[in-house]
Amino acid sequence: MRYSRITLHGRPVWAEVADGLVHVLDGDPITGKPRRTAERVPLNGVDLLPPVIPPVFYAVGFNYRSHLEHFGKQAPERPEIGYRANNALTGHGSPIVRPAGVEGRFEAEGEVVAVIGRTVKKATRQEAQESVFGWTIGNDVSAREWQHADRTFWRSKNSDTFKPMGPWIETDVDPLAQTTTVRIDGDVKAKFATGDMIFDPFDYIVEVTKYITLHPGDVLWMGADSTVQLEPGNTVDIEISGIGALSNPVLEEQ
Amino acid sequence: MRYSRITLHGRPVWAEVADGLVHVLDGDPITGKPRRTAERVPLNGVDLLPPVIPPVFYAVGFNYRSHLEHFGKQAPERPEIGYRANNALTGHGSPIVRPAGVEGRFEAEGEVVAVIGRTVKKATRQEAQESVFGWTIGNDVSAREWQHADRTFWRSKNSDTFKPMGPWIETDVDPLAQTTTVRIDGDVKAKFATGDMIFDPFDYIVEVTKYITLHPGDVLWMGADSTVQLEPGNTVDIEISGIGALSNPVLEEQ
Repeated sequence: MRYSRITLHGRPVWAEVADGLVHVLDGDPITGKPRRTAERVPLNGVDLLPPVIPPVFYAVGFNYRSHLEHFGKQAPERPEIGYRANNALTGHGSPIVRPAGVEGRFEAEGEVVAVIGRTVKKATRQEAQESVFGWTIGNDVSAREWQHADRTFWRSKNSDTFKPMGPWIETDVDPLAQTTTVRIDGDVKAKFATGDMIFDPFDYIVEVTKYITLHPGDVLWMGADSTVQLEPGNTVDIEISGIGALSNPVLEEQ
Repeated sequence: MRYSRITLHGRPVWAEVADGLVHVLDGDPITGKPRRTAERVPLNGVDLLPPVIPPVFYAVGFNYRSHLEHFGKQAPERPEIGYRANNALTGHGSPIVRPAGVEGRFEAEGEVVAVIGRTVKKATRQEAQESVFGWTIGNDVSAREWQHADRTFWRSKNSDTFKPMGPWIETDVDPLAQTTTVRIDGDVKAKFATGDMIFDPFDYIVEVTKYITLHPGDVLWMGADSTVQLEPGNTVDIEISGIGALSNPVLEEQ
């Protein structure tokens, strides 16, 4: 099943995506078992919102060996999680806006995202697997000069529009057996196996929940193997086989 | 006015605190103008929830000179914001649970907290002042050995129960003209002027909103001047004049 959110009559609602249609649901599929309402719209005529606004937005930093080598970092010895911020979320099709003052490397990172489906603490590996509701796609847009200049990732990774997520949550896919492809204006710029992670999502859930309760709707962005430069005027697509493609144009702040 | 949230008939509701009573409201005072319902309960018979669950939980790291000197850090040249996580929030009166495996310094930091009341981007200083709905109190509980051992603050500052916030939001107070007092079992362990901040809340709002939209309910924890050791069995009170006192017992994880 594929679930997303759209704006209907001025309000965000959950929807099921099937057969080129978006079927509006009468509730939240993460915490309940909603049914289709009578309302449906064609998929290609609708703006998809970020499929979930997480209570906590978790993100893995370095989780692929070649990405570590690119930045001259040592591989992590433990699965340690970090954070991103909800203000930066934007949906499939919405612009990534490069702020005035960003120079140099302004990059996309295509990531598989776990969406948590239940409240979980001190999870076993099996409980970690059962705790995931589904999988979506994230683009961890990063302004590298700010990343290096600042004490935290506040503006380098969390400026408005820097966290496209979507287009939907896919509940029936093996996230570790897929291929991530990053395209700029249709040209393939990066391609890697999702399964090449150093620590997989369930390793993270087991480790995080030793201390932290995960809640329904929390997301874990799992890191990227490659970075791809973005310029205003580009359209960047992050495709993950078995899930879909997250596409966003890049604009310059006016 | 003082606003908080309580659990009523199994659901969190907004309430107004006045004259030793908690008056249940029919809506959210941050985004609307709710009225009192007929329901009210005595303040001392009720569990106060964290007064708001923020869309984004912002926190200042070092913002008082003697705190910087204590950690051997240079004063920041710019107001740079960081993040905490909602899983760690807990209300007035609820226990701070020291996880198994925490040794050494396990400390309280008493902080004044700005609660944002409106959507704001690229704020002037006056708009920053107008964007704050009210002020509450936070205790930025920190496990220092984890803070030094880990790449991020994930478990050192964001383990469950590490972020008491409350008891309520006070809308009518000058946050820069108050005194913060930290007591352990009634004994004063730290006392400092809230106004000794290097950058004040409005400096942060002006800087953050150059890149980031702040939303109603977002919180900014403004940093502490002192750290105070916590031991299981203690009760820690953070009192800020003009706002109130946030009190939490400290327990050991079983």
